[in-house]
Amino acid sequence: MSSPIDFYFDFASPYAYFGSLEIEALARRHDRQVAWHPVLLGAVFKTLGTSPLTAIPKKGDYSLHDMQRTARFHNMLFTPPSRFPIATQAAARAMLWLQQQDPVHALPFAQAIFSAYFTEDIDISEPDNVLRIAADLGIDRAALTAALADQAVKDRLRQATEEAMERGVFGAPFVIVDGESFWGFDRFTQLESFLKNGKI
Amino acid sequence: MSSPIDFYFDFASPYAYFGSLEIEALARRHDRQVAWHPVLLGAVFKTLGTSPLTAIPKKGDYSLHDMQRTARFHNMLFTPPSRFPIATQAAARAMLWLQQQDPVHALPFAQAIFSAYFTEDIDISEPDNVLRIAADLGIDRAALTAALADQAVKDRLRQATEEAMERGVFGAPFVIVDGESFWGFDRFTQLESFLKNGKI
Repeated sequence: MSSPIDFYFDFASPYAYFGSLEIEALARRHDRQVAWHPVLLGAVFKTLGTSPLTAIPKKGDYSLHDMQRTARFHNMLFTPPSRFPIATQAAARAMLWLQQQDPVHALPFAQAIFSAYFTEDIDISEPDNVLRIAADLGIDRAALTAALADQAVKDRLRQATEEAMERGVFGAPFVIVDGESFWGFDRFTQLESFLKNGKI
Repeated sequence: MSSPIDFYFDFASPYAYFGSLEIEALARRHDRQVAWHPVLLGAVFKTLGTSPLTAIPKKGDYSLHDMQRTARFHNMLFTPPSRFPIATQAAARAMLWLQQQDPVHALPFAQAIFSAYFTEDIDISEPDNVLRIAADLGIDRAALTAALADQAVKDRLRQATEEAMERGVFGAPFVIVDGESFWGFDRFTQLESFLKNGKI
């Protein structure tokens, strides 16, 4: 079995959302698994002294247009959230907890969170919304509520973000496979070529 | 006749170089002309408070790798220049002067400058190198030497950079056509789709 595709993302990243819609099918085409890694981009940007795209003059307006155009180009549902960017601690902690405690629900949860934020304009920075989305999938709401307040789960997210930075992650989506790194949804074509040919 | 494709670039931008290799063929496929607009990205970044990609921690190392990989992916010649980025005033001023005084040589000159810097590691920040490349194409060396020192030509480049910023240019390559803006060589696929379908 080949090594998995490490897929680093923040639930508030539109381009990570686009990537989330394609990464599983892309992996299947090349007999790979996907390891989903939620991180906090805010912490990454703070460490590197960089900014989210939309906070940069000119680039911000352009990128909002680019997101919508990219979604249309790839036939992906997308509604610009009214609050953007937002804190994604609750969703990311829930994801890490599910991966350990209830792994069968981890992927559907990630997809439901992305969909809620980027197609239904649901504010996923609100823990109540995260809990409701989880409960709708059949996840134990009481156990997840406890997990979100658990210091060990908080630490796990901080550590996951640090480990991502140690591997060179500086934005999202960020994919690492077989030692090769790809930043951005617009590198998925090159990622696919690399998986197909073993080189690029 | 449809309106031209405005192609904004800095001679020191690797992704603009990649774009320069494809923009003319892309335009011809859709019966368009290309208007080549040299600008000084350094001045743009200074105004916006942003930085060149390679000056940003982590992103710098990644982008150097990404440039080489992108060149291989598209079968384009590319040798990372030993000095990067560099000042491109001389080449940009020469280009603007040629467009007015010797327009038949403007496009070959732009292509020769990009090629010298990105495939032969020739330091095009040196006016002597710019003059030699121009002379090899049959451009009047004495007239160009005078033009590079001409305040009117210097002013024209400053004005061209300001006009680009007024149109929203914040990086390179940057393409504007029929009111639609595309930033980055990796948006050429969407640009082509837009030219083909008149919408995106």
